Amino acid sequence: MGIIKVIGIGPGGKDDMTPRALKAIQEADTVAGYNTYIKLINYLLDGKNVIGTGMMQEIDRCKMALAEAVKGHNVAVVSSGDSGVYGMAGLILELLLKMPKEERPQVQIVAGLSAVNAAAAVLGAPLMHDFAIISLSDLLTPWKLIKKRADLAAQGDFVIGLYNPKSHKRVHHIEEIREIMLKHKDPKTPVGIVNNASRENETMVISDLENFTKEDINMFSMVIIGNSKTFAKDGFMVTPRGYEV
Amino acid sequence: MGIIKVIGIGPGGKDDMTPRALKAIQEADTVAGYNTYIKLINYLLDGKNVIGTGMMQEIDRCKMALAEAVKGHNVAVVSSGDSGVYGMAGLILELLLKMPKEERPQVQIVAGLSAVNAAAAVLGAPLMHDFAIISLSDLLTPWKLIKKRADLAAQGDFVIGLYNPKSHKRVHHIEEIREIMLKHKDPKTPVGIVNNASRENETMVISDLENFTKEDINMFSMVIIGNSKTFAKDGFMVTPRGYEV
Repeated sequence: MGIIKVIGIGPGGKDDMTPRALKAIQEADTVAGYNTYIKLINYLLDGKNVIGTGMMQEIDRCKMALAEAVKGHNVAVVSSGDSGVYGMAGLILELLLKMPKEERPQVQIVAGLSAVNAAAAVLGAPLMHDFAIISLSDLLTPWKLIKKRADLAAQGDFVIGLYNPKSHKRVHHIEEIREIMLKHKDPKTPVGIVNNASRENETMVISDLENFTKEDINMFSMVIIGNSKTFAKDGFMVTPRGYEV
Repeated sequence: MGIIKVIGIGPGGKDDMTPRALKAIQEADTVAGYNTYIKLINYLLDGKNVIGTGMMQEIDRCKMALAEAVKGHNVAVVSSGDSGVYGMAGLILELLLKMPKEERPQVQIVAGLSAVNAAAAVLGAPLMHDFAIISLSDLLTPWKLIKKRADLAAQGDFVIGLYNPKSHKRVHHIEEIREIMLKHKDPKTPVGIVNNASRENETMVISDLENFTKEDINMFSMVIIGNSKTFAKDGFMVTPRGYEV
């Protein structure tokens, strides 16, 4: 029986990948993941068997990765950011736990630097207080539930990080979220947008709740909406922890 | 004018620290941080000027670190986990932005693997869907606001990560939070507790909302409460992303 490791590679560059993740990929003989992520770690894949996106979709790819581990291979399933946050850790475990116990390969989850943490560092320190993370992708979650969560998080004055804020097909969701936020948060609340955090072509802008949807927001964006104490100054977005300074 | 970097070292071990964080510490001539964190990176501190806890409290320590950067030093301020999540990034930026622009040293925030991500990897994949992070420390935040946030997050069926769930002085807060959760969440909702995630003496247990406060919870614990879909099986805690498997 082999082993399968579900690895968060962080934002993508070598400098942000933990040594534990690097070692796990180096030791694997088989690597599975979206082609986009596979490309980011191409320099590590010489001589390895690669199971990419071109070949099949998420569930099938995870099943194939598990099958390779059952055959005795050392398999790395890679996600960008943290494999445990909207990544592949859950799906691999769901599939694994459906197998009879005696047929399961060993499994290990290797956390990575999450996209929201990388984006926050680019903006300054917006996540310094209680925060909520919401994905606006309604492929697997009812839009009504996503809106409800956004509303409750805004009521609670959480800092709010939005994953998957916009895609080619999904352009109006972010406007609806903005309107929900405006019911509870000041229009001047700082909103940070980071595209390609800690990657090539990284950009960032600090706007406010009233205006942020006019900025370039896409599939590679992270949007962070402040709480009532968050301020923007000289290119930094900061949520005070509460110290008297 | 020098430079100050506010660095998340991750859970503490070499294997979880990003190369970017490592390099930033190696390049610094002055390192500031809690003695607990300083000890974790002792092997990196030979020949460096160290500003530890013994000498002064958070605000004074950050002011001293900034003063060293102003004098021309290369200063590293270290936090465990991510420096941007209940870490020192906010305080350093708050103090820096109060200085006249022309007197400010360069500043850079270096994100690290956050405690909740490290703990989630130990438990399996509990953070696979929308989640809220709440600190139960009421030193800098009114307890009433913390309870309000917990209530709203539970209403929204968020997965909930609790930082600072308990301390010597603060033993009843976690019971109050449990009661708030029980208003909205099933008593059988899985709750994972990880002590010393990805450190020496790491322990983990998966309990449920009804019973979890009977477990060993302390200052080094991370508590993760599932959403309505989270399940526990064979030692793993998993929140499904929503794929039909």
